[in-house]
Amino acid sequence: MRFEQVTIVGVGLIGGSVGLAVRARGLAARVVGVAHEPDGPARALAKGAVDSVTTDLPAGVREADLVVVCTPVDRIATTILAAAPHVRSGTILTDVGSTKEAIVRAVGQGLPEGVHFVPAHPLAGSEKSGVENARADLFEGRLVVLTGAADGPDPRAEERVRRFWEGLGARVVRMASPRDHDRAVAATSHLPHAVAAAVVRGVPRDWLAVCGPGFRDVTRVAAGDPHLWAAIFLSNREPVLAALARFREQLDRFGLLLERGDGAGLAAWLAEAKRGRDAVGS
Amino acid sequence: MRFEQVTIVGVGLIGGSVGLAVRARGLAARVVGVAHEPDGPARALAKGAVDSVTTDLPAGVREADLVVVCTPVDRIATTILAAAPHVRSGTILTDVGSTKEAIVRAVGQGLPEGVHFVPAHPLAGSEKSGVENARADLFEGRLVVLTGAADGPDPRAEERVRRFWEGLGARVVRMASPRDHDRAVAATSHLPHAVAAAVVRGVPRDWLAVCGPGFRDVTRVAAGDPHLWAAIFLSNREPVLAALARFREQLDRFGLLLERGDGAGLAAWLAEAKRGRDAVGS
Repeated sequence: MRFEQVTIVGVGLIGGSVGLAVRARGLAARVVGVAHEPDGPARALAKGAVDSVTTDLPAGVREADLVVVCTPVDRIATTILAAAPHVRSGTILTDVGSTKEAIVRAVGQGLPEGVHFVPAHPLAGSEKSGVENARADLFEGRLVVLTGAADGPDPRAEERVRRFWEGLGARVVRMASPRDHDRAVAATSHLPHAVAAAVVRGVPRDWLAVCGPGFRDVTRVAAGDPHLWAAIFLSNREPVLAALARFREQLDRFGLLLERGDGAGLAAWLAEAKRGRDAVGS
Repeated sequence: MRFEQVTIVGVGLIGGSVGLAVRARGLAARVVGVAHEPDGPARALAKGAVDSVTTDLPAGVREADLVVVCTPVDRIATTILAAAPHVRSGTILTDVGSTKEAIVRAVGQGLPEGVHFVPAHPLAGSEKSGVENARADLFEGRLVVLTGAADGPDPRAEERVRRFWEGLGARVVRMASPRDHDRAVAATSHLPHAVAAAVVRGVPRDWLAVCGPGFRDVTRVAAGDPHLWAAIFLSNREPVLAALARFREQLDRFGLLLERGDGAGLAAWLAEAKRGRDAVGS
């Protein structure tokens, strides 16, 4: 399971970490980066995330047998459709987008014969961004979710993508559909991000100095890139709004117990949350 | 600044860590524990958190020059009032409670002449509990907040408590009043704890498997002890309800922006949270 050429489109935190990991583990003969911003090539090379880099998408994907699209989520589908006419038959296109249904729908049946798209989502983000923060071990022990795509997806292509991520140290699971994936991550990733930001925003600035490790944990993700996250929320609007409604119900229940001074009720409410959190592990 | 005897009442995560730190740093000739639960003495000794341990509060505090009350927050004031008649004149009583106003009010003027209470709150909790998880370095680099008390507090007693915590590696700040403290930690500690629990409770159990490092960070504190936290919430009810109201306003704003599909508004909303979180540091 070694590729001749892996091309990474979008060499930021995730794309850069894919490049570092592929190079460190020798999963490809060469890693080519496609950078979007003017200083992208210099930064990607300085980090050692790629063997070579270009700003020309068609040139960058032409010789690839695997193309990993790591752009912000709102540019993934257009990038896949722009790359597809330039790849060889047999090339696999995959992505790292935080939401899947909109991408799968937009890519649709728009790929040439013999070119396959395998949607993937590594749950390995960080509040940091940029290739400077990329790490070869970012995916070790992390979860990567595969979901179906409009063209099946091709079982052999999916199997190669599964092995690719396993080769980077990740644990791969397959969910039944892009929609199932999006609803789950709305609850476990997107809504928690909004909640963390709302916690910070709700604290008068003077009091921010009076905080301990708990506050730092709860709000860490709120330091993430605002534009990346705005795009993620927009790409998963209905599932996030549904998760927000469920969250509000829980919060209302807490508020009611506290108003009543119901200590036993509060302890039971907290104990149920503890059971859920304990099941997740550290 | 060395004590002859430091007595720790309540040898759990915090009390045990105080004991380990005092012993490791040689801040007292001896550390005596007062344990409440039947297996408390054995566990405290096994961990090496104290030199000796008793279940007899009067006996445990009689020779102390510093008594650190580390019981759950709803038992701190009664423990202080129960200990005070048995200590020598000049003894300093202090605590580690997460809220201060109710404790300061309950202790009131109820102390013998020459015995001083200095309210303190180390912001060094953890989702773990019990003396088995105690650590000698728990307070290193952490914040300890001192607040006023009904009897002043005595400036020399306060200064000794300040040096005590600094001796354990903490950074000590003084807030203007117990009420100010309680309002600030309602926003930076207590409400975030409730929010973390509500996030977990809002996720259908099947989806908890699909989570990454962000979810783990946001919800880590939800694994904390439900009874300890129910007592904290009850002891700080009005400030937590006020923080909850502010948080809800922020969340409503987020929901509105998302419903409208307002990407620029979402990015601006997230950017303000990022500025606040960046100011706190890692």
